[in-house]
Amino acid sequence: MTDIADHTDAARPTSQRREQTRARLLDAAHEVFSEVGMDAASVEAICERAGFTRGAFYSNFETKDELFLALVTRLSDAKLDAVESRVQRLSADGQIDISDLVGHLGAPFGEEMDPHLLTEIRAQALRDQRLAEAFLTLQRRVLERIEGFLQHIVATYALTLRMPVRDAARVLLDVSNETCTTATLEGKSSDSITDDLRRRIEALVPALVSDGGAAAFRS
Amino acid sequence: MTDIADHTDAARPTSQRREQTRARLLDAAHEVFSEVGMDAASVEAICERAGFTRGAFYSNFETKDELFLALVTRLSDAKLDAVESRVQRLSADGQIDISDLVGHLGAPFGEEMDPHLLTEIRAQALRDQRLAEAFLTLQRRVLERIEGFLQHIVATYALTLRMPVRDAARVLLDVSNETCTTATLEGKSSDSITDDLRRRIEALVPALVSDGGAAAFRS
Repeated sequence: MTDIADHTDAARPTSQRREQTRARLLDAAHEVFSEVGMDAASVEAICERAGFTRGAFYSNFETKDELFLALVTRLSDAKLDAVESRVQRLSADGQIDISDLVGHLGAPFGEEMDPHLLTEIRAQALRDQRLAEAFLTLQRRVLERIEGFLQHIVATYALTLRMPVRDAARVLLDVSNETCTTATLEGKSSDSITDDLRRRIEALVPALVSDGGAAAFRS
Repeated sequence: MTDIADHTDAARPTSQRREQTRARLLDAAHEVFSEVGMDAASVEAICERAGFTRGAFYSNFETKDELFLALVTRLSDAKLDAVESRVQRLSADGQIDISDLVGHLGAPFGEEMDPHLLTEIRAQALRDQRLAEAFLTLQRRVLERIEGFLQHIVATYALTLRMPVRDAARVLLDVSNETCTTATLEGKSSDSITDDLRRRIEALVPALVSDGGAAAFRS
């Protein structure tokens, strides 16, 4: 019993310290990435910014790519949480304000999430089997959450989608990813990518939602 | 006059030889890529397969990536030509055979075009500004041709699209590219990717084409 109690007491602060170390490394990686891009963001530079040794880095992440995937996951979760809280507040009483909703769905990046980061980590995943699996896990989770938002919106406003909700979620994610990749290749800024994305999603809505339901939208 | 005539006569065979050299290098690159992938397909291995020196390679392509982009362009043109000839034969007399059409639109890869090649060259373009511009030029051309196919189909069967034809073409291209990238990350075979793509495009058709027009489709 004493052993177990000791173990539990000791483990909690260690686990908290570990989380704090990871969080500081992620913050530092985010800053360094914004300044020099992913290729030039060395483990050394990230450790120096965070005030840690390389030892601390490698006891938390096996590679720089793994760190950046963890960063993408954190930013993506934060953004999806924000969309979720917006979607949960939707009420059947009012009409849907399409500009507002598209603004939320179409701004998965904004100030926090740099679309270039997402595009770069995905390109990297194509070269690294282990990273590919982690990236696919993240993508499945994002897809499930988008599917959840769509289901909630459809139920709230009694809309009819023109395809299964999973397919509709996938189209939204595909268009979002491709808008992001193409705009990155074109050298566009994050703000400009967000504008492109809003425009593309606005063009998609009348295709995804059947006419009867679309009448509930206010544009 | 003699100078010009000489120049013209001399230039033609040189240009033809050059085209033949490029074609043989592209054939060799295609073979070597299929065997070992793009990273491991060295300039040396490609030259050896084609029976040329490195000098011949570098007088035609600045880098290996440029060669692979030329290969993607050649394969993509061939496939789009095949779709075009199929679309041109469509007749307003008969109903559209959606399985047949989707089979053509959804099989841009098939035996000839390896989707992994497209995905890898795109990832490479994110790391190389010059390659990015060449890739974007290719993508714009593909988009224009898909737009042309859609316009022809819409005019032939008096269909109505639920979004501007350019946007619809872009959605088809986005879904195609993303299906290809995700399936490559999942380690799927080319055949399996083509099956995924058919399924995804079939789900899209009722969303892109308005109900009146969709009745013209035979599924």
